[in-house]
Amino acid sequence: MTVSIPALITEMGSAARQAARALAWSSGESKNLALEAMARILLEQTGPLQTANALDLAVAQSKGLEAALIDRLRLTELRIREMAAGIRQVIALPDPVGAIENLSRRPNGMQVGRMRTPIGVIGIIYESRPNVTADAAALCVKSGNAVILRGGSEAYHSNRAIATCLAAGLAEAGLPAAAIQFVDTTDREAVGALLSLSQYVDVIIPRGGKELIKRVMQGTTIPVIKHLDGICHTYIDRDADLAMAAELTFNGKMQRTGVCNATETLLVHEAVAAAFLPPMARRLHEAGCELRGCDRTREILGDTVPVVVATPEDWDTEYLAAILSVRVVPTLTEALAHIEAHSSRHTEVIVTRDHARAMRFLREADSSAVMVNASSRFNDGFQFGLGAEMGISTDKLHVRGPVGLEGLTTLKYVVLGEGQLRT
Amino acid sequence: MTVSIPALITEMGSAARQAARALAWSSGESKNLALEAMARILLEQTGPLQTANALDLAVAQSKGLEAALIDRLRLTELRIREMAAGIRQVIALPDPVGAIENLSRRPNGMQVGRMRTPIGVIGIIYESRPNVTADAAALCVKSGNAVILRGGSEAYHSNRAIATCLAAGLAEAGLPAAAIQFVDTTDREAVGALLSLSQYVDVIIPRGGKELIKRVMQGTTIPVIKHLDGICHTYIDRDADLAMAAELTFNGKMQRTGVCNATETLLVHEAVAAAFLPPMARRLHEAGCELRGCDRTREILGDTVPVVVATPEDWDTEYLAAILSVRVVPTLTEALAHIEAHSSRHTEVIVTRDHARAMRFLREADSSAVMVNASSRFNDGFQFGLGAEMGISTDKLHVRGPVGLEGLTTLKYVVLGEGQLRT
Repeated sequence: MTVSIPALITEMGSAARQAARALAWSSGESKNLALEAMARILLEQTGPLQTANALDLAVAQSKGLEAALIDRLRLTELRIREMAAGIRQVIALPDPVGAIENLSRRPNGMQVGRMRTPIGVIGIIYESRPNVTADAAALCVKSGNAVILRGGSEAYHSNRAIATCLAAGLAEAGLPAAAIQFVDTTDREAVGALLSLSQYVDVIIPRGGKELIKRVMQGTTIPVIKHLDGICHTYIDRDADLAMAAELTFNGKMQRTGVCNATETLLVHEAVAAAFLPPMARRLHEAGCELRGCDRTREILGDTVPVVVATPEDWDTEYLAAILSVRVVPTLTEALAHIEAHSSRHTEVIVTRDHARAMRFLREADSSAVMVNASSRFNDGFQFGLGAEMGISTDKLHVRGPVGLEGLTTLKYVVLGEGQLRT
Repeated sequence: MTVSIPALITEMGSAARQAARALAWSSGESKNLALEAMARILLEQTGPLQTANALDLAVAQSKGLEAALIDRLRLTELRIREMAAGIRQVIALPDPVGAIENLSRRPNGMQVGRMRTPIGVIGIIYESRPNVTADAAALCVKSGNAVILRGGSEAYHSNRAIATCLAAGLAEAGLPAAAIQFVDTTDREAVGALLSLSQYVDVIIPRGGKELIKRVMQGTTIPVIKHLDGICHTYIDRDADLAMAAELTFNGKMQRTGVCNATETLLVHEAVAAAFLPPMARRLHEAGCELRGCDRTREILGDTVPVVVATPEDWDTEYLAAILSVRVVPTLTEALAHIEAHSSRHTEVIVTRDHARAMRFLREADSSAVMVNASSRFNDGFQFGLGAEMGISTDKLHVRGPVGLEGLTTLKYVVLGEGQLRT
């Protein structure tokens, strides 16, 4: 007898809802025991995990996937140890569930406050890297949520093996194994079924390319927490310390290039462009960074280094590579207008010594993180002190920036009365 | 030359986005001046507002609308004074924009915190009552958001006249009038166009019946803050003070019946049902409340008062009328399971003297407000001390319960550095 895919997914949703109820108010102690068991079992199963991973790698090689993608897919011993270490970091974080905030007394004597609670059931739809399975599941368990994981087909065997270890850890600690479920089919129909499961799934978190995220948004009435890419700007103000500006630009662009919080566009105030740009461009060029500049930039740089003409598309492109687009702007106002028009609302940096200009940039740049005199690479859950993250939200509602345990919870009102009636 | 409706709405969206940028960082003082001008102009225009309203009333009467609906539509002098008073209450509230929370120092010396900012452009799609136009616009202005208002066709002339007064108030205070725009057509195509405007509209708030809300959710990829109806429960525990329980039940059901926070289902622990139900039923019956009971309830009540057999649909119905469904439950666990299965996640009340049972109910009942020994009627922005509200969200993400100024804002990360680089 075969079960249809929608029926399978509905069954998973129902089991997840039940598991979520049980997990929601489990003690922090038992959640931590489960997380420790999850970490331990992953380490114990290093051999079988690598056997499962070899199946995915063989398929990837036979399909002729790029070497970089195959590398992302590979579960080395080190990566398995890192997954376990990631889970143990989550153990060390405080339990967010149950805290009551701002309990205050109303004129009629009632106490009104807000209690932090799990969201319920979280559906995660992700591509490639198998470590997401462990990272996401650990954050969901700690925040008291059940999770349904739908990984990419390239990592199917690896993800399934990891999820099995994680669910075993839950069961060992006496928590419902159905709080971590893996969609055990690569059939695309399963994604549609999951997106339709509004009676059981409280939020969908897609992690992957823009096409995936667009498909998810258009295919569901369930709220979505989006983890979009980053077109991040570093703006060098006319009052910048130019030595600091050079370090922050280099770090923001080159410390790691394939990540969402890397700087993709450099904006430079015209008053400092002639002094700042030539040495900066030389340093970037020598480090292997391609430059794409506006007319003014190319004029200033002349023959110092090769500079491609920036096209209108460049300002809207996330390179994820050693490429930087550069524009000279006449004013801070123009820099903010450029950011308003082209930013993906991820991270914006101003380098300046002027307090008023720093404050204006902080107010007006409308992105998940806005920084004064710091590298764009800092927009990250670990760097911000959240301990761990599910990704970085470029949404405006519910949660912006790194999504940690707090982003996976919600607040409900609690009222403590002594018989108060409404008049 | 006629402009197509999608082109008209797109133009409004573009103007709203520009106005939102200007309004976002206007001072609290100028926002309050605008609100005061809005209130004053509404009062000055009482005559013209009533003339516009008479057009809507004439259409409603010719269509044979119910008397209650026509009454909701009517703009009496008192109601216009109440609208102005509502705006003045919003003036008295603190400006939420710009506060920075939890600014803390990271190990590398960076300060990381979160700044409260406006959401941007809010689209409100609502039915009937014209006062919503003024209430919603006032909250949006105070929280620094631009608003596009799409009212129901029944109140078209009234809403348009009110919105004109409000935009005039903005202009008088030197703020952009386009921060309050009214969709000046009753054509339904305008709703579809507004729901497609994801490049300009940051959140959609539908206010009205379930059909409207369902249509909005299915027709948009823009985040939605929902104001659904309430199937609220009052649970009388075995350890309840029965005199208090009777007052809270009566107040929760009968203080006002046509509202979302009225109690629709009474759950009674079987240990107290025989003592509690007969006098309670008599009192409700004498006040004109119809009762619909489970078998056990009908057995206990016998011939005391007429009790209709509750059908399965009754547990899922929001009566918005003097009707109460009653169920006897054997345990607190069963009461929580009933709530989990049938609640619209609006408001749940437990009446008990037992601390542990109160705490368990507070934790496990998963609704926007959960109360111990207080009337369900208290789930309301004014009662909770928010000052004013857009409605009550039954969503889990971003905001639950009454949506006041805070619910119309969002938090972005701010980082104050001194040249920190990522290593």
